[in-house]
Amino acid sequence: MRVTQADLDLAQRLADAAGAAIRPYFRNEHGAEEKEDGSPVTLADRAAEAAMRRLLDAEAPGDGVVGEEYGEKPGVTGRRWVLDPVDGTRSFTAGRPIFGTLIALVHEGWPVLGVIDQPIAAERWLGAAGRPTTFNGAPVHTRVCPELRGAMLATTSPHLFTDADVPHYMALVAAVYGTKTGQGPIYGGDCYNYGLLASGWLDLVCESGLKLHDFAALAPIVEGAGGRMCDWNGDPLTADAQGHVLAIGDPARTDDVLEALRAVPG
Amino acid sequence: MRVTQADLDLAQRLADAAGAAIRPYFRNEHGAEEKEDGSPVTLADRAAEAAMRRLLDAEAPGDGVVGEEYGEKPGVTGRRWVLDPVDGTRSFTAGRPIFGTLIALVHEGWPVLGVIDQPIAAERWLGAAGRPTTFNGAPVHTRVCPELRGAMLATTSPHLFTDADVPHYMALVAAVYGTKTGQGPIYGGDCYNYGLLASGWLDLVCESGLKLHDFAALAPIVEGAGGRMCDWNGDPLTADAQGHVLAIGDPARTDDVLEALRAVPG
Repeated sequence: MRVTQADLDLAQRLADAAGAAIRPYFRNEHGAEEKEDGSPVTLADRAAEAAMRRLLDAEAPGDGVVGEEYGEKPGVTGRRWVLDPVDGTRSFTAGRPIFGTLIALVHEGWPVLGVIDQPIAAERWLGAAGRPTTFNGAPVHTRVCPELRGAMLATTSPHLFTDADVPHYMALVAAVYGTKTGQGPIYGGDCYNYGLLASGWLDLVCESGLKLHDFAALAPIVEGAGGRMCDWNGDPLTADAQGHVLAIGDPARTDDVLEALRAVPG
Repeated sequence: MRVTQADLDLAQRLADAAGAAIRPYFRNEHGAEEKEDGSPVTLADRAAEAAMRRLLDAEAPGDGVVGEEYGEKPGVTGRRWVLDPVDGTRSFTAGRPIFGTLIALVHEGWPVLGVIDQPIAAERWLGAAGRPTTFNGAPVHTRVCPELRGAMLATTSPHLFTDADVPHYMALVAAVYGTKTGQGPIYGGDCYNYGLLASGWLDLVCESGLKLHDFAALAPIVEGAGGRMCDWNGDPLTADAQGHVLAIGDPARTDDVLEALRAVPG
């Protein structure tokens, strides 16, 4: 499908609505509680998703909607909005302005539009098929990364890797940074890292355990900025990728990254 | 010694000068290079420290100065300014607004005044002996933490822990979060986490490998907000603490934290 200006406008209004719902809770009482899976949820997550769903019900009633907090509403158009009202809820509850609202428009299983919105710093990345990614309205591009050694790698938390993931991740870390204590990737950041990569300030993001609502919005942003997103085998990201997500700013480094991830010391 | 209003004013002007030097380099060409120890340094680090040293030479010529980038200038007053122009250089180079400028005034080996300044978000914590810590001018206080389980713990990077540190750190993580994959502390943040703790949005910070210029500014801020800073044995932080730093928002949790750090599975 072709993403229209109306789709882009609606996505921006969704982000505006989410931001307005989130801001009053930042560094304020936010009613954090644990969900069944142990992940945190706050009044901000719920208010932001509810605000976006109200807007979609009014303006795109035939589209499906799936959100992290309120489940799935089937649609009739083949289009589906995938919402993560607060990606990086822990950062949000700690008062760090590097969480984000994620909005994706998915058509026949493929994300065609994505937004990362940081409502405290008023920063927004917008990507869509066939259109350059923008940051606060201005086009951005990933940067050239001449070699893997010395690249800048980011990931949210070491605890998101399973025991089986760890040796692969650590092999990538060693390929990028060597093995000296004290050197290593930057941590934290959630979706914000993918925006920074799209803007050319980071080279790589390697994560595990991401769900559809975590990564659907990211692919149009990274790819519209000249980067590549794939799973740890280099395959396209699907719901089957087990959350093994790679974002590579310079697609010429793809083989190096995949090789490093495979190079687990025997 | 008594911290005077003139000291506080000078500390704020130092932070202003550092911020003015740093901002032009943020998300811009910053000439990052690796120092001998593998840690990064940029034109922003150097310009900010030089700007602070110029101000100190003019306004406090008898005080000693030690900075991360330009070494030590002996003084004659028993007072020494300890400067870290960009704490969190990796976050800075990645375009994340959660690094900070650290400024401490140390008297006879004891930090009596500290500043954490985040020049992009215009956020400043200021702490001094005998005075409540402020955030952008308003007093702040750490929060009550009724039990260790469910506290919010932050640390900058798992790679800062030595092999000997890891089991102790992981024992603390297990005491706070349990052992389920996917749950755990928030990562990244450098000095910013200590400011958030002073403001009552985080409960604990546990780190290793910190140097004097990393932690001297933090103690007056955390303690002036009602929290406690000590090493992993509960002893006062000195240059001998091997960089094993704890910040505890609610001092009533100190014994629980120390016990958890000791409880390494045999």
